[in-house]
Amino acid sequence: MLSKSKIKLIHSLNRKKDRDESGIFLVEGIKMVEETLRSDFNIVLLVCSTKFANQHPEIQFRVKEIIESDSESIQKASLLQNPQDVLAIVSQNLNIKPELNLQNELLLALDFIQDPGNLGTILRIADWFGIQTVICSENTVDVYNPKVVQASMGAIFRVKTWYTSLEAFITKTAIDETPVYGTFLEGKNIYNETLASNGIIVLGNEGNGISPEVARLVSHKIYIPSFSSEKSAESLNVAIAAAICCSEFRRR
Amino acid sequence: MLSKSKIKLIHSLNRKKDRDESGIFLVEGIKMVEETLRSDFNIVLLVCSTKFANQHPEIQFRVKEIIESDSESIQKASLLQNPQDVLAIVSQNLNIKPELNLQNELLLALDFIQDPGNLGTILRIADWFGIQTVICSENTVDVYNPKVVQASMGAIFRVKTWYTSLEAFITKTAIDETPVYGTFLEGKNIYNETLASNGIIVLGNEGNGISPEVARLVSHKIYIPSFSSEKSAESLNVAIAAAICCSEFRRR
Repeated sequence: MLSKSKIKLIHSLNRKKDRDESGIFLVEGIKMVEETLRSDFNIVLLVCSTKFANQHPEIQFRVKEIIESDSESIQKASLLQNPQDVLAIVSQNLNIKPELNLQNELLLALDFIQDPGNLGTILRIADWFGIQTVICSENTVDVYNPKVVQASMGAIFRVKTWYTSLEAFITKTAIDETPVYGTFLEGKNIYNETLASNGIIVLGNEGNGISPEVARLVSHKIYIPSFSSEKSAESLNVAIAAAICCSEFRRR
Repeated sequence: MLSKSKIKLIHSLNRKKDRDESGIFLVEGIKMVEETLRSDFNIVLLVCSTKFANQHPEIQFRVKEIIESDSESIQKASLLQNPQDVLAIVSQNLNIKPELNLQNELLLALDFIQDPGNLGTILRIADWFGIQTVICSENTVDVYNPKVVQASMGAIFRVKTWYTSLEAFITKTAIDETPVYGTFLEGKNIYNETLASNGIIVLGNEGNGISPEVARLVSHKIYIPSFSSEKSAESLNVAIAAAICCSEFRRR
């Protein structure tokens, strides 16, 4: 059975402060927990139905502690609106600077992305388009926020994230010829540009776009043009803009 | 002041059955209500702060009933997690078949889109890419669901939607040479195809893709390839796929 203290622990993982202190995060649902089992992340606790345990004999070797529990208890612990019969507590990967090869590699850099759904979706897009690392400004929403984890559909286990000052990162890293792209209203039409196969694509805050400190480091200002005849469509969601940018950079 | 019966009415608009019966829907937040004021939709009731009323003198001519109210009452009525000081009750546009010109026009057709956030985002994408009409299967989530309205960021007022049987619609409408596109795992690489400037792009259900009945009407099967080296990225969110398709169809 699932003790009250365990349920309390699980609920605490909805708060960044508690996640930071404990160094763990929550993963929910069959598909997501299966992704976790296939990843190299360390699973501290698995709470699941007997059915799930029987269908996944590998958990014996993969998980530190297993609690088989009834649906009702799991629902009490769950942070989801529609809980499934399985959840896992997983160790965070420490925020270590990933090894980069910016002469060949394309990175995303997120400047104050606030919405967890957007961050999760952007990680999923990066995963799809073979972008291995996403650099996040320190004020970007926490990658271990349960809503980010769920929206990433498992991409969180494959795409590396690193939280740091974007300004310092770009200044130090994007030396020499590394192109730094960013979307601006006054940028050049992305469909007409010859885009590099390496460099950094900066994506800005949902409301305010790219901050002035980072904007001055952008070497290539680009723009996704609207095809609306009324010029009434005011903006694209940042995850949608990320998808179109990644698609344009990868297509040949 | 905002009466209890008005608050009850507002809360009822979270339920499709009640929206269908009353023929009205809820719009919340400053930006969204400003979009409503600029649209040709009929505003039945506006609940707002005195500040908003003073800043928007046009509401006198535009709105049937105005209630100036304090934040606390508006928060009680609101369905949002972070309520703003304004909301509006708006008449639905009846589900009338839009005039189409499929020899020149590009349409989206949604086959059982379930998630309100996805539908709202797809409408916003359609708006950006100048797609004026979105055809929805009868089991697609209701366009007047408050979460769809909010996620559309106002696109709901500009993009026409029509709920009908996709099978019947495509059979009747896509006669002669009208291309019908749909994404399938076995489809052709979208980046290598010459895409038409007219026709129908079918987008399928979040979990199950395009239904068999609609799939057999698709004349051009396409596919957005993954660039992930591990082949681990399993799927794109349907709104992300919609964005990449629209971008590919519109770019020249």
